[in-house]
Amino acid sequence: MARPSGRAADQLREVRIEVGVNRYAEGSCLIAFGYTRVLCTATIEDKVPPFLRNSGRGWITAEYSMLPRATQTRTPREVGRGAPSGRTHEIQRLIGRSLRAVTLLDALGERQITVDCDVLEADGGTRCASITGGYVALYQALDRLVRAGELPRLPLREEVAAVSCAIVAGEPVLDPDYSEDSSAEADGNFVFSASGGIVEIQVTAEHLPISAVQFAAMRELAAKGTAELIAKQRDALRKALP
Amino acid sequence: MARPSGRAADQLREVRIEVGVNRYAEGSCLIAFGYTRVLCTATIEDKVPPFLRNSGRGWITAEYSMLPRATQTRTPREVGRGAPSGRTHEIQRLIGRSLRAVTLLDALGERQITVDCDVLEADGGTRCASITGGYVALYQALDRLVRAGELPRLPLREEVAAVSCAIVAGEPVLDPDYSEDSSAEADGNFVFSASGGIVEIQVTAEHLPISAVQFAAMRELAAKGTAELIAKQRDALRKALP
Amino acid sequence: MARPSGRAADQLREVRIEVGVNRYAEGSCLIAFGYTRVLCTATIEDKVPPFLRNSGRGWITAEYSMLPRATQTRTPREVGRGAPSGRTHEIQRLIGRSLRAVTLLDALGERQITVDCDVLEADGGTRCASITGGYVALYQALDRLVRAGELPRLPLREEVAAVSCAIVAGEPVLDPDYSEDSSAEADGNFVFSASGGIVEIQVTAEHLPISAVQFAAMRELAAKGTAELIAKQRDALRKALP
Amino acid sequence: MARPSGRAADQLREVRIEVGVNRYAEGSCLIAFGYTRVLCTATIEDKVPPFLRNSGRGWITAEYSMLPRATQTRTPREVGRGAPSGRTHEIQRLIGRSLRAVTLLDALGERQITVDCDVLEADGGTRCASITGGYVALYQALDRLVRAGELPRLPLREEVAAVSCAIVAGEPVLDPDYSEDSSAEADGNFVFSASGGIVEIQVTAEHLPISAVQFAAMRELAAKGTAELIAKQRDALRKALP
Amino acid sequence: MARPSGRAADQLREVRIEVGVNRYAEGSCLIAFGYTRVLCTATIEDKVPPFLRNSGRGWITAEYSMLPRATQTRTPREVGRGAPSGRTHEIQRLIGRSLRAVTLLDALGERQITVDCDVLEADGGTRCASITGGYVALYQALDRLVRAGELPRLPLREEVAAVSCAIVAGEPVLDPDYSEDSSAEADGNFVFSASGGIVEIQVTAEHLPISAVQFAAMRELAAKGTAELIAKQRDALRKALP
Amino acid sequence: MARPSGRAADQLREVRIEVGVNRYAEGSCLIAFGYTRVLCTATIEDKVPPFLRNSGRGWITAEYSMLPRATQTRTPREVGRGAPSGRTHEIQRLIGRSLRAVTLLDALGERQITVDCDVLEADGGTRCASITGGYVALYQALDRLVRAGELPRLPLREEVAAVSCAIVAGEPVLDPDYSEDSSAEADGNFVFSASGGIVEIQVTAEHLPISAVQFAAMRELAAKGTAELIAKQRDALRKALP
Repeated sequence: MARPSGRAADQLREVRIEVGVNRYAEGSCLIAFGYTRVLCTATIEDKVPPFLRNSGRGWITAEYSMLPRATQTRTPREVGRGAPSGRTHEIQRLIGRSLRAVTLLDALGERQITVDCDVLEADGGTRCASITGGYVALYQALDRLVRAGELPRLPLREEVAAVSCAIVAGEPVLDPDYSEDSSAEADGNFVFSASGGIVEIQVTAEHLPISAVQFAAMRELAAKGTAELIAKQRDALRKALP
Repeated sequence: MARPSGRAADQLREVRIEVGVNRYAEGSCLIAFGYTRVLCTATIEDKVPPFLRNSGRGWITAEYSMLPRATQTRTPREVGRGAPSGRTHEIQRLIGRSLRAVTLLDALGERQITVDCDVLEADGGTRCASITGGYVALYQALDRLVRAGELPRLPLREEVAAVSCAIVAGEPVLDPDYSEDSSAEADGNFVFSASGGIVEIQVTAEHLPISAVQFAAMRELAAKGTAELIAKQRDALRKALP
Repeated sequence: MARPSGRAADQLREVRIEVGVNRYAEGSCLIAFGYTRVLCTATIEDKVPPFLRNSGRGWITAEYSMLPRATQTRTPREVGRGAPSGRTHEIQRLIGRSLRAVTLLDALGERQITVDCDVLEADGGTRCASITGGYVALYQALDRLVRAGELPRLPLREEVAAVSCAIVAGEPVLDPDYSEDSSAEADGNFVFSASGGIVEIQVTAEHLPISAVQFAAMRELAAKGTAELIAKQRDALRKALP
Repeated sequence: MARPSGRAADQLREVRIEVGVNRYAEGSCLIAFGYTRVLCTATIEDKVPPFLRNSGRGWITAEYSMLPRATQTRTPREVGRGAPSGRTHEIQRLIGRSLRAVTLLDALGERQITVDCDVLEADGGTRCASITGGYVALYQALDRLVRAGELPRLPLREEVAAVSCAIVAGEPVLDPDYSEDSSAEADGNFVFSASGGIVEIQVTAEHLPISAVQFAAMRELAAKGTAELIAKQRDALRKALP
Repeated sequence: MARPSGRAADQLREVRIEVGVNRYAEGSCLIAFGYTRVLCTATIEDKVPPFLRNSGRGWITAEYSMLPRATQTRTPREVGRGAPSGRTHEIQRLIGRSLRAVTLLDALGERQITVDCDVLEADGGTRCASITGGYVALYQALDRLVRAGELPRLPLREEVAAVSCAIVAGEPVLDPDYSEDSSAEADGNFVFSASGGIVEIQVTAEHLPISAVQFAAMRELAAKGTAELIAKQRDALRKALP
Repeated sequence: MARPSGRAADQLREVRIEVGVNRYAEGSCLIAFGYTRVLCTATIEDKVPPFLRNSGRGWITAEYSMLPRATQTRTPREVGRGAPSGRTHEIQRLIGRSLRAVTLLDALGERQITVDCDVLEADGGTRCASITGGYVALYQALDRLVRAGELPRLPLREEVAAVSCAIVAGEPVLDPDYSEDSSAEADGNFVFSASGGIVEIQVTAEHLPISAVQFAAMRELAAKGTAELIAKQRDALRKALP
């Protein structure tokens, strides 16, 4: 079966990562998965949530939002709602958990790093692009702490990246764009670490339960995709940081 | 390794399902997973969300809430927030998706069924108890439509049930209670259908990525647990319905 | 005139009080006035509202809510409103005032007791059932403080209970159910103490002013009804507490 | 016992009613109970709440608010809360019910009259002044409909007025000002019609239950007070309307 | 061109300022620009916003609101919105800035003065009436601090007043009423100090850009109008204060 | 006096306008005034606000927001507030009025164009950059309607642009950056059309009234600045549009 984009079933969209795109933020990048573009910034603050005060441990949290015209038709801003939507909440909690899973929070000290992921254009896979780009912004911010002598070494275990997979017309595909996603029978987000550890798996059958075989195929595609994304992260950071 | 409750690693808590506990609701049950108790009701309304109007298709949605003293210390009500919390949103979206995955929405006709899951006491696993009990309330409501001649047959494909698993002190365990859950290294919710289909898998590593072997063990426990839960559902419905 | 239920004009519905129904709460009961069922829990916290800090006095507050399917047709949850409705506010303020009127707040010390009243099913009279059941939950919580040696004696003056009366088709009736209530010409809530003291009287003519004679008849019925309810409270607490 | 103001126990404060104080509103008055001053306006609109559409019946509703500096120290506006406070809700529902109880809603036709009661200065008794003044504004608005030939006659049964009573230092007093009110043991709001009918009685014991004798004394004072207020209403309307 | 009111193009409406109309507020006045009437109160509190704590400096802030029937047809209250409207925000920020521009905040000490402007009736020009009346209420409050010995002298530089101008049918007019304002091509608010200093100029072309000549004419009218208003302020304060 | 940037008093920052930066929006540009960068998109919808339905006229509205890390320290998102802040409201109303003043709303037909201005980085002057860039996005959207044959010609009278001026250390300067702005004595936003028409003037003295001479100097700088900005708009559009 041919994909609308002509990609192979196991092929990522073109991925670009531009590091250091915001002059105020301690870390930042603009990440693109094809037409999906997310601006990620990392902010370091010398405060932690109440449950960590005087614990010596740090915290990483994330916020996620879409510009109104990130979408094909304009999506109203959430500011009038009084609270982020359920979808926004789910996504920002996922980003936060994924980044914390590869960070040594004890070694970070009592600091909070807020990773903001603002979607400039959305063509599917925004949460995975946010995690993958959020890691790069986080790395840059932590690297700055190390260079400034505030931390002896990077408090990171390993890289983390995320990719989505879907079952479209019965076939598993890697990194679907919006047109594939909106007709998918099942949809999964996989967050894996560089060593292949499982940080998060979220698989949802949209209409019908899927089979164990289909699940296994999605997982395999995701392993391949996240490995490639981690190579892109390394490459972008190596070029950008002194 | 001994579990605090003395259960085997692959043993569910005592499960009780009492059908028909609300005199107004079209379907209802009180489900207990050990000390976790959830009151589930199903309400049939002759209206559907805007995107389904004049489509001939029906819809199933869910709402989830905890009574303030469902928890060891009192949890403030969400009514003052203006919107349900992110956690509540995630859970009620999961319940709705899980029930829709086994329902023939076309055969339901333009009706909406709202499944309300109100947690009376929480000792871990409330979302899984809600899905498992929500299915029973939904079944009773649909059965009422069939008996009333409004539907020719039950618009259900098969049963659905959910159970959580965790990695506690390195070991996978089935259906953890709150004390196990709060010290777990990873935590997964598995929603499976009677035929073993995957409706939803959500696995989260709390601190460190987990290995593929650990994930496989959790999934196997979940398959055993959901099969037992589905047997309980059948048993409760057979006894309660004429 | 015959009542729909066949009850005499001065007859309560069947009243049941089950004490200790929640394993976490310091006090709890499930109270039924016929088909009206309310779950009451009492939570003790070592904090008081700002206006009582460092006063040595305690406080009792109440919250009230209905499950969505407590009613014949589903009532949307208030969580989306940003604040409890006016009706909810009126009721929870009434419950709190009624319980404070029989409590020695000085003797309670700087503690706050929150009485949560969650209506599982509503067939009229939910606020009166909440006050009557709330007293039982409060008693159990205070009794626990005494047994734990934290208070020398129960800081309670006497029992308090509440019942509603209505004028239906021109006749005063005790403890109307929903069908009587919804067609009543006037409606009153009477909160009386064991010694016959008046804690609160709220009488409202729905359409036309009522006469002094009608008011007197309602009040007399209420006195009889609350006396019977207080006997039920005593009975339930005597059986439940050691 | 001498009252702080030197008034007799059964003496109202000086009451002034100025009719027609707003050039836009269909009815209006400025009512003073001593230092308590409330601006009441009545607005006629050709629409009714959804539950009355196509019923041929009308509706009367009320809103109540206090200017920030109506009180001795400044009270923050409620606009930041997202909803009126519980107290505001209780009061505006009471005003609306009281005015509806003396209005022939069928004869009003499908119109809604909104009575706005804005407290310019508060020295106790604002809700009773609002009901008493609200009636005057309502009368003027209805009279305008009659003069315009839109109604054949005034759709009013009789006058309605309200007064508060309190038990202060054990003694019942009529129309307490703020200094008496804030130290009262019990507090009652009585809404009576011109013929002595009971529209609403709300009596609350603040700390201790009160006795039947005390309640009877409050009620008697209220009957005297509302009769005097109704004479003031008649007088003000006779002078103001042609 | 004749104005609807028969006024000359450079003629203010009748302006009345009644000082000391609220018995609780530290300063107050009722100001009328023709039919526009605004009740202004000034409240002194011994606290400042967080950014001024321990700075020794004071602050002046303003709030603005309209009663529902200040307008020809009833305007719903803003309390249901959760926040003041954009228009309300703009106006209250303008009032606050204007009053701060003539106050010596250092000499005021760590006090906050809140000027509340509540519009009783609106016939155009409410924000300008609020600034002009707000200054009078502020003066009275500051004068009270001086008389009480809490300040050595009035911390005011000079008077401030505001007036609006409009281009109506191509002609500049001073102090338009609502009927002129609603058909104006451009609309300006001018806040000037007694010495002719510019505190704020806000000129808006409603449909088409205006010319430099028209702008100059509006500004000249405003200079004349504010000088007359300042004379009225002086007169009212001289008569009212000992 | 030397400016921190070394610019002359009447010199704009470097201005760049990149047209067509969003693939979904009907019109878009990224505009930079030095380090200030704003992403502007224009969305065409076939609906108008209620007050324009069936009028045949169109409408232009604007929304404004800042990304959290547009600022030197992170600014919390407004989504938790339930409504945009007062500052946001002021700015988005200003942008909308400015664009409407140069648009022929009758000729636009019953369409609404929403101009979203999202600030990526803020170094002063964001509202002026939003107006100037918003015009470019609007132009592109309207041009698309003309090319599609939906409009016979561009419904625009002339260009509009905006620039701010300030009095810094007594001297008027054009287009201040954040460091100048935050220490300015007065601050003005000038919205002028290509022919020199005045669309909006907002001048605010921060601490002290300013003189007529200072005001005149600011206005002159603004005239020069907006003329240069309009040349930039023309240039960018000419290059970008076929």
